[in-house]
Amino acid sequence: MSARSEVADRTRSFVREVVIPAEPAWGRTLPDAELARLRALAREAGVFAPHAPTALGGLGLPLREWSPVFQEAGYSPIGPAVLNAMAPDEGNMRLLEVVASDEQQERYLRPLVAGDVRSVFAMTEPHPGAGSDPDALATTARRVDGGWLVSGEKRFISGAEGAAFAIVMARTEATGDHGAGATMLLTPMDAAGIRIGPSIGTIEAAIAGGHPYVRFDDVFVPDADVLGAPGQGFRYAQVRLGPARLTHCMRWLGLARRAQHTALDRANGRELFGSPLADLGVAQALLADSEIDLATSDAVIDAAAAALERSDREGAALSSIAKVHCSEAVWRVIDRAVQLCGGDGVSSGLPLIQYLNEVRPFRIYDGSSETHRWAIARRASRARARAVAAGEPRLDIAVRGDG
Amino acid sequence: MSARSEVADRTRSFVREVVIPAEPAWGRTLPDAELARLRALAREAGVFAPHAPTALGGLGLPLREWSPVFQEAGYSPIGPAVLNAMAPDEGNMRLLEVVASDEQQERYLRPLVAGDVRSVFAMTEPHPGAGSDPDALATTARRVDGGWLVSGEKRFISGAEGAAFAIVMARTEATGDHGAGATMLLTPMDAAGIRIGPSIGTIEAAIAGGHPYVRFDDVFVPDADVLGAPGQGFRYAQVRLGPARLTHCMRWLGLARRAQHTALDRANGRELFGSPLADLGVAQALLADSEIDLATSDAVIDAAAAALERSDREGAALSSIAKVHCSEAVWRVIDRAVQLCGGDGVSSGLPLIQYLNEVRPFRIYDGSSETHRWAIARRASRARARAVAAGEPRLDIAVRGDG
Amino acid sequence: MSARSEVADRTRSFVREVVIPAEPAWGRTLPDAELARLRALAREAGVFAPHAPTALGGLGLPLREWSPVFQEAGYSPIGPAVLNAMAPDEGNMRLLEVVASDEQQERYLRPLVAGDVRSVFAMTEPHPGAGSDPDALATTARRVDGGWLVSGEKRFISGAEGAAFAIVMARTEATGDHGAGATMLLTPMDAAGIRIGPSIGTIEAAIAGGHPYVRFDDVFVPDADVLGAPGQGFRYAQVRLGPARLTHCMRWLGLARRAQHTALDRANGRELFGSPLADLGVAQALLADSEIDLATSDAVIDAAAAALERSDREGAALSSIAKVHCSEAVWRVIDRAVQLCGGDGVSSGLPLIQYLNEVRPFRIYDGSSETHRWAIARRASRARARAVAAGEPRLDIAVRGDG
Amino acid sequence: MSARSEVADRTRSFVREVVIPAEPAWGRTLPDAELARLRALAREAGVFAPHAPTALGGLGLPLREWSPVFQEAGYSPIGPAVLNAMAPDEGNMRLLEVVASDEQQERYLRPLVAGDVRSVFAMTEPHPGAGSDPDALATTARRVDGGWLVSGEKRFISGAEGAAFAIVMARTEATGDHGAGATMLLTPMDAAGIRIGPSIGTIEAAIAGGHPYVRFDDVFVPDADVLGAPGQGFRYAQVRLGPARLTHCMRWLGLARRAQHTALDRANGRELFGSPLADLGVAQALLADSEIDLATSDAVIDAAAAALERSDREGAALSSIAKVHCSEAVWRVIDRAVQLCGGDGVSSGLPLIQYLNEVRPFRIYDGSSETHRWAIARRASRARARAVAAGEPRLDIAVRGDG
Repeated sequence: MSARSEVADRTRSFVREVVIPAEPAWGRTLPDAELARLRALAREAGVFAPHAPTALGGLGLPLREWSPVFQEAGYSPIGPAVLNAMAPDEGNMRLLEVVASDEQQERYLRPLVAGDVRSVFAMTEPHPGAGSDPDALATTARRVDGGWLVSGEKRFISGAEGAAFAIVMARTEATGDHGAGATMLLTPMDAAGIRIGPSIGTIEAAIAGGHPYVRFDDVFVPDADVLGAPGQGFRYAQVRLGPARLTHCMRWLGLARRAQHTALDRANGRELFGSPLADLGVAQALLADSEIDLATSDAVIDAAAAALERSDREGAALSSIAKVHCSEAVWRVIDRAVQLCGGDGVSSGLPLIQYLNEVRPFRIYDGSSETHRWAIARRASRARARAVAAGEPRLDIAVRGDG
Repeated sequence: MSARSEVADRTRSFVREVVIPAEPAWGRTLPDAELARLRALAREAGVFAPHAPTALGGLGLPLREWSPVFQEAGYSPIGPAVLNAMAPDEGNMRLLEVVASDEQQERYLRPLVAGDVRSVFAMTEPHPGAGSDPDALATTARRVDGGWLVSGEKRFISGAEGAAFAIVMARTEATGDHGAGATMLLTPMDAAGIRIGPSIGTIEAAIAGGHPYVRFDDVFVPDADVLGAPGQGFRYAQVRLGPARLTHCMRWLGLARRAQHTALDRANGRELFGSPLADLGVAQALLADSEIDLATSDAVIDAAAAALERSDREGAALSSIAKVHCSEAVWRVIDRAVQLCGGDGVSSGLPLIQYLNEVRPFRIYDGSSETHRWAIARRASRARARAVAAGEPRLDIAVRGDG
Repeated sequence: MSARSEVADRTRSFVREVVIPAEPAWGRTLPDAELARLRALAREAGVFAPHAPTALGGLGLPLREWSPVFQEAGYSPIGPAVLNAMAPDEGNMRLLEVVASDEQQERYLRPLVAGDVRSVFAMTEPHPGAGSDPDALATTARRVDGGWLVSGEKRFISGAEGAAFAIVMARTEATGDHGAGATMLLTPMDAAGIRIGPSIGTIEAAIAGGHPYVRFDDVFVPDADVLGAPGQGFRYAQVRLGPARLTHCMRWLGLARRAQHTALDRANGRELFGSPLADLGVAQALLADSEIDLATSDAVIDAAAAALERSDREGAALSSIAKVHCSEAVWRVIDRAVQLCGGDGVSSGLPLIQYLNEVRPFRIYDGSSETHRWAIARRASRARARAVAAGEPRLDIAVRGDG
Repeated sequence: MSARSEVADRTRSFVREVVIPAEPAWGRTLPDAELARLRALAREAGVFAPHAPTALGGLGLPLREWSPVFQEAGYSPIGPAVLNAMAPDEGNMRLLEVVASDEQQERYLRPLVAGDVRSVFAMTEPHPGAGSDPDALATTARRVDGGWLVSGEKRFISGAEGAAFAIVMARTEATGDHGAGATMLLTPMDAAGIRIGPSIGTIEAAIAGGHPYVRFDDVFVPDADVLGAPGQGFRYAQVRLGPARLTHCMRWLGLARRAQHTALDRANGRELFGSPLADLGVAQALLADSEIDLATSDAVIDAAAAALERSDREGAALSSIAKVHCSEAVWRVIDRAVQLCGGDGVSSGLPLIQYLNEVRPFRIYDGSSETHRWAIARRASRARARAVAAGEPRLDIAVRGDG
């Protein structure tokens, strides 16, 4: 595990002593008042908004120190929300910190870091719009006097119910000194023309506010609320996505560790056929595979975080690999824990099957495993082709006969 | 990838420009004279014995900087031997550096670092002696006047043919101020009572000198050639094994990268059913999985190397995990490359199937995957049991009903 | 696919034309009245109770012809219930057909086959009672005048809410001409001393009546309601379990085929990056792996059904293998379909994630994969040891050296 | 296991009593004289050429009875050759039986069945000719007076050294009443214009005569030696390929069973950490997975053989699935056996690593796993598209919202 700060230790204590005892029962969600109470305690404990800039009330940790902290937070399914380090807010904070104007930061970012409001990131659209293929973006922003009119429909907009504002991705024509492309725009969610719904049933519940459809009908966004420069939306999306993918990995890795601890406790505490379950090899093989999954996930997250601090290109490549590996590894770890806990694992006896449902969608959102694999293969093929073009000898020229 | 030194870049150039063109053809081994010629060039190029102490003629790199260098060396199956960074000599150098007396270092370590001689590590025994279970050690060293008489049989003694000296592990009785236990002893291979053979057929060929049986019949070892303190053999074995496991991972990871480059070249250069193979998804899935295996192996090696520098206990745990993951990952990567190169992959057209045979035994030596998994599970179970005993709440207490 | 009867074709038509259009929406369960309506239609269509004896109103198919029919039924999650071929009733019918007296058949089996009542099989107990290890049976039946008093607690008693009668497994002392052991007893669920609850939250919903705890406090069972002979309970459990495991495989294989059809439709109908998804190799690899899983599951079910008709021993061995393979294969198939359908796959857009939750517990009930693997390995080890004892030469005697 | 004939039992006894004791040592091949001696014994024992027509001296077993016999033969790596049931001869016999004229059968098939000569099947070509994509066939047969002149180069021509005749696939122009296409031609290997070489190094050795290049330079083939009708070559190739793929599965499944028996013997006979290895769960998990692989392979071979007897289309689909599953399963089984036997598994101590190398190419020849997966996915996609076109409702239409 990488650079472990004092914040990580504080977070660990806070989550175990304060957060876990407050977790809601099977099938329930955390009431708003309870979340507010826990957040107040988190602020007192000095563990609130660890990733956000100190100037705005965060703890200002650099990216390479996030992993141990976010893993500790994720040890409870409600931990990241309590610490204000949950998606989509956490990624939006990062994006606004890097791209937003001072004025936008005061208006939108400061209350977000403070935990006074929630936000959404409105990019995904119903088929055939922007989904796995972002280029298919169908929502548009039309130039009008003093601003833009946004129209289109989004879906899987996590956290939309109750959110204060949205970052909307829309297609824009070339105007003045800006080329055509995708543009990010900020808008309060109570702006005229925004309609939330229908809601979408999902199997995970960690993000408050659901994942509904959101419709935009000629929503007016003044020029002051354009985020960064028009036409640069896809570039900014990458700024957000690299770290956002990794923080998902970190949080869910924490939850996977919780599942593994549950499995180890069960293995240590139960006997089967007269032996402690922990000594039965079929169980040992599962436990060991999970340890390997946890350790390799932890290591590749650190490597990707370091790469992101070094260079955008390297960071994108390695965070893509980390995303695939971690999303699949955490799911395997929890699945094995379910298996080791038997009937309790698939019922309300233990929360494990809920955890499994909680992480299942992560193999799909932020780029499905298949889309990432396609991109990883293409990136590797092209890098190698460039190397060969630059003089590396081709290695696949077969010898004729056995020399 | 971790701390990348200038040595890594030099090694990369040296291996591609000097070593690869000198690789022997399918089924042949590198002649001794050719090895000597290449080693001379390696010394000139400043890439020889990168891990060994500078006082003895090595480059003195710290453990955390080995990985990129050893990976570059391993990019050629003969690279590690050319750089004098191959097993078992490399692990023996480490062991002698830490444990040997000044006199022993002059006599045994200096010529080993210089590449003037080869060495063996004589621990493994025929069943039911020391194999997967080191405690079963059957070879003994009996106290006699001025030294010890070693008797027993070892097997899979890599590099024995032509080696100058051996580090032998033997069971010793308590004597004077030393307790009973395993003891390491140094002995020239031409000492009276040492007999090599029979040889054992293997499918890998990277280590010169085979992996034969070696028999010791009342071989006299003077007190001055006892390595460290009597009775401490198993502790010293760990000193050797932690890094030695990792350097195997590093070297073979380099070879796996070579296989992946071969597969990428083939995928970029061939068409199938009218499309470049690199664009066919079934191939892309294989290529992507290999990229993930390479990146996670690289990351967990770095994590384990850092842990080894931090603490023995953490280092042992993580190097065990790294060993299982890397030994299986490099084998999968090469297997996929074989698959992507079709007929050439399983024949003398390309060296890939040789590479596959070269790395297959690594899933068995230095502790089989199964033995490691057993140890990993047990270590995790015990660590968790200690944590629970120290106050962590048990997580597996099932709720009765769906509350 | 094995012997395909006309019943299979009729069932196929019935499920597609009548059952699928009646499936409840996301998160809803089938109302009782609707089930009754569908069952009436199933009787008319000549597809009701295909496995039950004709004398009692079933279609009387022999075991080797069940698979195609049950697969067609399972193509809809409510299909097996509509056809009265769902667990636990279907397995109970088999058990009663083989073991029950004529009188018991009239009283309990006839209304069960007719679909007038539901039943439960009360074997599993809370830890440390009968779970993975049936020998731990804690519920007892005490001999009293004219019958037995049953006391103990069961859990995961599928279908208990609303069931008319139970088959209870209890430990009995030796009495008269019967030895001590486990005994099966029939009892109406409204007998004095039976209390249902608490209920247990689960993620699957295909079986009506939940999976609650059921408590027995001195429940009187007259001698006439003992099933078969006292002390023979474990033997009868095997009679039930062999085919019951296989029918689970058959039903869930039908649902997995439905998921694969959904994925194929999506792959045929959608484009990604400008190509039909069905032509993208990463998708093709998933689709092909699912085809392989479906075909091997189908084949091994047929092999196990044939073995069950041939001999109990062979049948037990092969049905255990089939159970592990199929329970894992159907889960992989549905998981891949979820993946290929992206956001719709993990939300209420499509029923796939419900299907995944529906089959997840099958890797645990009727013997977990781990328990079966342990038993499969032990069975293979012992069979081989017997063969060697009977004269087969041992094959693991290693040659010394490479002679 | 399917219909088990008396021949299977005789073959089992013959292989264990006669063939296994005659197996050559590590790295050696069976001398021709020894093969002849064993074949004479096989004829006497009534186990020779079990698949060939009785009229020509075979045992005349129907396809659905081959599997148990071929598995027993494959239990020894030299078994199939001794029984004259080895590739490529066995597949060539099948092809000649179905397609060849009476005269051709007398001249070519009869001595082949008798074991007096060996044959080759010359289809595969060096890139970019006929490899994974048969349509790329580059060898041509040019019409001349009274016959054809064949020119081109083939490679991986198994058994070429010492073979008496070849079946050559060549591209032909339309002539008279035959369309253009691929044509099969028979030719003695000593015909003018045939040159064998260079040889190709491979890692497997079960097929006598190597897998060299073979060059054809204006080799004259008279009309009487055209096999079947001109232009029908690809159709005939399917006649050969369906069963030939399956017989490979059967033979290698027999060898995998031998490996599993070796592993079981080792597990039963050795202790590790004080327990019999067979009781250690990590070993049990490997053994159980191998039992599952063996049983599912056996079952899917039977299903594919039955499908081949039923219809060409169904047979092709299922034999493709069986080929992928079995080629990967046998390789996994042997790999696990290697692992369980540790150092002996990867050395000349036991033959296991040779077995592993023997079966590795089967994942590539007769269509690589990737090519088959591509074909399996495409076949499934098209079949489903046809079903939907014929009225099956599309299943992937997502519901909007969670209604």
